[in-house]
Amino acid sequence: MTTFENNFTDAEYYRRIDKTRAAMAAAGHEAIVVTDPSNMSWLTGYDGWSFYVFQGVILTHEGDPVWWGRGMDALGARRTVFMQSDDRIRGYDDTYVQNPEKHPMEDLAWILADLGLEGARIGVEMDNYYYSATAHAELGKALPKATLNDATALVNWQRAVKSEREIEYMQRAARIVEAMHARIFELAEPGMRKNDLIAEIYATGIRGADGFWGDYPAIVPMAPSGLDATAPHLTWDDRPLETGEATFFEIAGAHRRYQCPQSRTLFLGDVPQKYRDAENAVLDAIEAGLEQARPGNQAQDIANAFNATLNKAGFEKDSRCGYAIGISYPPDWGERTISFRRGDTTVLEPGMTFHFMPALWLDDGGLEITEPILITEEGHECFCTTERELWVKS
Amino acid sequence: MTTFENNFTDAEYYRRIDKTRAAMAAAGHEAIVVTDPSNMSWLTGYDGWSFYVFQGVILTHEGDPVWWGRGMDALGARRTVFMQSDDRIRGYDDTYVQNPEKHPMEDLAWILADLGLEGARIGVEMDNYYYSATAHAELGKALPKATLNDATALVNWQRAVKSEREIEYMQRAARIVEAMHARIFELAEPGMRKNDLIAEIYATGIRGADGFWGDYPAIVPMAPSGLDATAPHLTWDDRPLETGEATFFEIAGAHRRYQCPQSRTLFLGDVPQKYRDAENAVLDAIEAGLEQARPGNQAQDIANAFNATLNKAGFEKDSRCGYAIGISYPPDWGERTISFRRGDTTVLEPGMTFHFMPALWLDDGGLEITEPILITEEGHECFCTTERELWVKS
Repeated sequence: MTTFENNFTDAEYYRRIDKTRAAMAAAGHEAIVVTDPSNMSWLTGYDGWSFYVFQGVILTHEGDPVWWGRGMDALGARRTVFMQSDDRIRGYDDTYVQNPEKHPMEDLAWILADLGLEGARIGVEMDNYYYSATAHAELGKALPKATLNDATALVNWQRAVKSEREIEYMQRAARIVEAMHARIFELAEPGMRKNDLIAEIYATGIRGADGFWGDYPAIVPMAPSGLDATAPHLTWDDRPLETGEATFFEIAGAHRRYQCPQSRTLFLGDVPQKYRDAENAVLDAIEAGLEQARPGNQAQDIANAFNATLNKAGFEKDSRCGYAIGISYPPDWGERTISFRRGDTTVLEPGMTFHFMPALWLDDGGLEITEPILITEEGHECFCTTERELWVKS
Repeated sequence: MTTFENNFTDAEYYRRIDKTRAAMAAAGHEAIVVTDPSNMSWLTGYDGWSFYVFQGVILTHEGDPVWWGRGMDALGARRTVFMQSDDRIRGYDDTYVQNPEKHPMEDLAWILADLGLEGARIGVEMDNYYYSATAHAELGKALPKATLNDATALVNWQRAVKSEREIEYMQRAARIVEAMHARIFELAEPGMRKNDLIAEIYATGIRGADGFWGDYPAIVPMAPSGLDATAPHLTWDDRPLETGEATFFEIAGAHRRYQCPQSRTLFLGDVPQKYRDAENAVLDAIEAGLEQARPGNQAQDIANAFNATLNKAGFEKDSRCGYAIGISYPPDWGERTISFRRGDTTVLEPGMTFHFMPALWLDDGGLEITEPILITEEGHECFCTTERELWVKS
């Protein structure tokens, strides 16, 4: 039915579905409608850049999930989802696309009614990506007997502990991000246009590494220099790299939609003492954080150890220093569940994966030295072997 | 205040704001909160990959707009927006980020109240990207005296007619997409891994053309082959290009966030008659559509002429055959306003820009030959000079 090599066995999809159903039952949902593309993909295998129109996956307590989306994308669904039966794929008419006269949620309501869910308690992802305020209002209007309850992040939480196959894909993505960083270090030099360097980063990431092809990262490369690096999320232009400036590279390798982000910082020229001090503080604080990265500890233990060590060295970081990672689509490579910050009491389990992201933004630049990690039975492993230090070329 | 070269003059931003205020007044909005990143950028110049957290631009009928977002992104706002005064940039605490315990809309409500809008009629983009159902509910809860009305696409519509500078950026993006297509034709051959070709497409697009740097396209390259090309939005893997298959390349050049999408199809080997027939039908139908692309005509005139010609040749296309383009952020490079389809009676004006997108998906493959166009005083211009035909390498 498809020429795609499925990314996972049917058995793995059914394990995910069972896990999700248990969470649905606990929350009292008779069905859920999942609109976050990462959740759609995790539950069914669906893979396509079609999330700019409304689409979703319907999961009840019986039978295979139903993929729902734009009619033309039903063809892409047939080629990527694990469900074999054509009645599990439902496409809507193209006149519903970006048309103020009619809303695709009307079509979704018909399908839900057709599945016997006209009066059901249905969970919807009220605060996940691509489920708009209008979508929610229109769905409610079209299904007046149903009760729409909030199921934000319900599926995201089921994704936290990774399977062996998922970890394998993240390890392949780790090889890719290592190759991307190596290429940066090889090529970056004063006078090089930033966009030319980004072009090389992209090309390396998509060629892949170790024989494994590169997929698109859920966030584009961020690589600001000098004062621009005081801000975290600027992208690039054509200004050349300059001596005396630090540039941080916040990038990810990706394989079959699994993301392995990692940041490093490159200083061109003689490193000012302030940057050396910041580097030492961050490296010590990373060690302190990693010591807490083991099953049974809480997410906040890592943040607290990290922050205590950083503060002792005279530096401050107000923002969270890590988050869960795995399968992802734009606009975010995080899972939007667990954060490394004070107050997050989630208990770490083997198979959980995080981007430990202790970025420091200074008054005249930025320093990002980060580690994607896997929680193991004994403690943790870093996904990457990238040299953990401030890189310098002079 | 910023090392960025502003993409537009302050005067141009004020023209946009005046235009938007007139539309606000007509709709009865005392203020609007714009959360679509393309609208945020068009109104203020803000540019950063931070739309995975809640953020927005507040515009009232007096004074400069206010940028609102995550505290760490306020630094990026300072470096990219045209507003000079620090009180026009408001950042929220990092504990609001992806935290089920508290929602950033609470912070937005305080700022709106601080601006005297506690009881105002406020327009919100209920059906634009990144404004979730929860965001809407939380904002309403935190501002009980305000009236939240729908302002979906209000700003998008103001973007329809482009300024000279905007057209210049799109022309630069056109040179870039031409270079990307030329590189595809140069390199593609049987046995080449698809991801290796995509790596070259990316690198070419980001290096840029004619001395102008390439920005990231709002959609990643789509390049399915053979049966996968019966579906429109699949991305890539490492399966090699094969003789006897068509691959379509739906890609965009981008410069300073302005997008110029264009698709071409490459057949490797001897072209079956069916593809030649489809090619001829599409080329004739494009000509027929372009004849209608002139000021005073309606958007549907292009679609109707296109479809009539296509049908005469025995082919059908159910979906729309074009949409407005300009500045854009993921997940879509369209403006989500005007569509080329039956029933869209929007009157074409000089300065409007579209992706005329007459893709055909056949039962064993796809054919995409598309043209980005500018409506001129006299008629239209195609942005690109890319050879308009089915490309063949044998």
